[in-house]
Amino acid sequence: MTVTRELAEYLVESRSADLPDDVRREARRALVNIVGCALGGAPEEATEIAIRTFTPFSGPKDGLIVGRREKLDPLRAALVNGISTHVHDYDDTLPKNYIHASSPVASALLAYASCNDVSGEDFLHAFVLGFETTSRVGNATYPSHYDVGWHSTGTCGVLGAAAAIGKLTGLGVQDMVWTIGLAATQSAGIREMFGSMGKPFHPGRAAQNGYEAALLARNGFTSGEYGLEGPRGFAHVLAADRDLAKVTDGLGRDFDLRVNTYKPFPCGIVNHPAIDACIQLKEEHRLDAAAIRAVRLRVAPLVMDLCGKRDISTGLQGKFSVVHGAAVGLVRGRAGLDEYTDAAVNDPEVKRVRDAAVPEGDPAITEDGVHVEVELADGSVLAKTLEHSLGNLERPMSDDQLSAKFRDQAVRALPAEQVETVLQACWTIDALPAVGDLVAGTVPR
Amino acid sequence: MTVTRELAEYLVESRSADLPDDVRREARRALVNIVGCALGGAPEEATEIAIRTFTPFSGPKDGLIVGRREKLDPLRAALVNGISTHVHDYDDTLPKNYIHASSPVASALLAYASCNDVSGEDFLHAFVLGFETTSRVGNATYPSHYDVGWHSTGTCGVLGAAAAIGKLTGLGVQDMVWTIGLAATQSAGIREMFGSMGKPFHPGRAAQNGYEAALLARNGFTSGEYGLEGPRGFAHVLAADRDLAKVTDGLGRDFDLRVNTYKPFPCGIVNHPAIDACIQLKEEHRLDAAAIRAVRLRVAPLVMDLCGKRDISTGLQGKFSVVHGAAVGLVRGRAGLDEYTDAAVNDPEVKRVRDAAVPEGDPAITEDGVHVEVELADGSVLAKTLEHSLGNLERPMSDDQLSAKFRDQAVRALPAEQVETVLQACWTIDALPAVGDLVAGTVPR
Repeated sequence: MTVTRELAEYLVESRSADLPDDVRREARRALVNIVGCALGGAPEEATEIAIRTFTPFSGPKDGLIVGRREKLDPLRAALVNGISTHVHDYDDTLPKNYIHASSPVASALLAYASCNDVSGEDFLHAFVLGFETTSRVGNATYPSHYDVGWHSTGTCGVLGAAAAIGKLTGLGVQDMVWTIGLAATQSAGIREMFGSMGKPFHPGRAAQNGYEAALLARNGFTSGEYGLEGPRGFAHVLAADRDLAKVTDGLGRDFDLRVNTYKPFPCGIVNHPAIDACIQLKEEHRLDAAAIRAVRLRVAPLVMDLCGKRDISTGLQGKFSVVHGAAVGLVRGRAGLDEYTDAAVNDPEVKRVRDAAVPEGDPAITEDGVHVEVELADGSVLAKTLEHSLGNLERPMSDDQLSAKFRDQAVRALPAEQVETVLQACWTIDALPAVGDLVAGTVPR
Repeated sequence: MTVTRELAEYLVESRSADLPDDVRREARRALVNIVGCALGGAPEEATEIAIRTFTPFSGPKDGLIVGRREKLDPLRAALVNGISTHVHDYDDTLPKNYIHASSPVASALLAYASCNDVSGEDFLHAFVLGFETTSRVGNATYPSHYDVGWHSTGTCGVLGAAAAIGKLTGLGVQDMVWTIGLAATQSAGIREMFGSMGKPFHPGRAAQNGYEAALLARNGFTSGEYGLEGPRGFAHVLAADRDLAKVTDGLGRDFDLRVNTYKPFPCGIVNHPAIDACIQLKEEHRLDAAAIRAVRLRVAPLVMDLCGKRDISTGLQGKFSVVHGAAVGLVRGRAGLDEYTDAAVNDPEVKRVRDAAVPEGDPAITEDGVHVEVELADGSVLAKTLEHSLGNLERPMSDDQLSAKFRDQAVRALPAEQVETVLQACWTIDALPAVGDLVAGTVPR
């Protein structure tokens, strides 16, 4: 038995009744998070441009785009969903391989479900299979594949999207082998794109190309039989080191959804402990920002390398500034999308506190931790030490926190009265008779 | 100046009047050859399936497909053209880097020109720029990129298609930099697909994705600035060794079209010397195949490794059988597409001569050469030694031979009365007021 065929057989034979309850629960949480991200990213420029570019070429426009009024053919809708879900770098992360697996997989599935008859049960099942495929291929090639410069969310995500759509279209084993092969041979996306629209383009293309791989294979378009493991296959060509057993070991028993994490703040993850601690100080002491005289941060040395920026003027720069994160935490008690706009970065009160903040790298602090001291006008000092930042595996975001994050993003695309309906549908997705209704509910009325 | 930007500036600033005459001539030859290949591949199953798969999703169907009556949006038409041009492995080859550069570039351009106003002069110019971009990126990463398992025709071809469409759409330098970046980050295609429909899928996707990269960039979709040379850019991620100077050195002066070659026979290139010699024997001696008693071939040892197959029953197997090639040369005096069908392989006379043929590896014979002896029923022996096989750089196919190859392929897709019109248009392409008329002429009436 070869790796590609073994994976294909699992995908074809898996039944949704086999999914453990905790995996189903985590899949729902991932879907709440990713649909929220799609709504948050729907109004962004990268999303707009992709819609504008492909509208003139789009077929019968029965594919819906999450959070948008325009329609496209579902293959292009998958592309656009992939861009919007990842454009804020706010989607889920697998700490074990740095992959954002929900974006490519859910983006394809939501587009497919918008114009095909798909029950919530089948949708959730296909999502789990696509997510696991993405992460397992990532595990098998991590870290060499990532380290050399591949953006695994795209390169592995295309396999997950293909697996998920292949499952929903009811492929047999041979067609699934070809689907995996045709996805493997479209695997692409280099990290040189980071900091540009090219980055969210990766899960978009992965969603679309995986979707198309399944349709082609279903119609008899052949691929090599050993797309993953062959001597000129995915793993050998795209990774200097590899352990292909990680694709297939424990299939159906071990699920990486159990070790998926959600970002509470839409910025560089190394800033999260400082933001978290500052929000906690703000809440615990009902801090008046005007009273803040100085802020001292002891952070992991890596934070200084990646996010030491002080002199900033744009929202994008704010994402890579630990002092900006601390400042919005102390001034506003939150760090949502609104805190990473140009306006927020130039808000005089935020700027004053940011300028009063001094970070210092300390090898004793882990990347999950921080020590914050806030000196007030009366000379008193408030302090907070965190070992684990919110959103880490040791301190996962609660369902309520995921809902709050969803709302924060959804209001950017939807009238308030639609937000709760969609949120509720996401939390109960596997009970829905037709996921198309959920997607239709994300179209602004 | 960086590599990506220097290339972009050249592409933007190049004027067709700057093209040397010999390069224009070779571009016309390449276009005659590749349009012929598109016609030869148009009726193939891989082409059919792609059309069938994407028709339901295709936008306003104003894009024409070479050799087909169906229409698709031009982006999908580019994909289908890429499949048909490469499906017989009959397109051109750059011996210096094994790239088939015309397929991805011309496939995108023909689709674009089918529904946009493009003069022959501009078309030929864009083709040259796309061809050179493809080959130069290939040179910069050869051989490590190819050796590890990338199918460079796809991986480098996407950059050429992007450059060509970017040129025709009149991009400025910044947009061209992004076009190159968005193409680089879609670079894909692994050699594990060889022997399946996944192989011709590569130049198809390259054509489509390059085309789309240019459209996205034109609308303001950004990419990284250093798509080719950055620390996480194309060359570093996709090649263990690289020499990026080969992308830019001699731009506008050195053209790889001058070292492009055309296959006279639609089969593994190592068989070509034997076929060529057998056809010459057939012609020189007006050989009656019935008189053949034995055939002895002395070939390069590599031929035995790659094409030693004797016991064959399908056309595809015939492509990898040197004795089949020799047999059709001696029996039919030709080795066109009709000699690589299942019927031809099972033709009793071909089979008899094939079974009478014995190849032997001889280290004294180069891969360009062969020694053939044919023993006749009367005991006489005819012999032929070749140093250079037809189609090599040292013995290029003549214009007349390219025309004959074109006709052999075109009749598979077109009524005879259309063939000469299209062929004539290809030979005079840079004088055409609108290349769309040429493409329209390839649609079977």
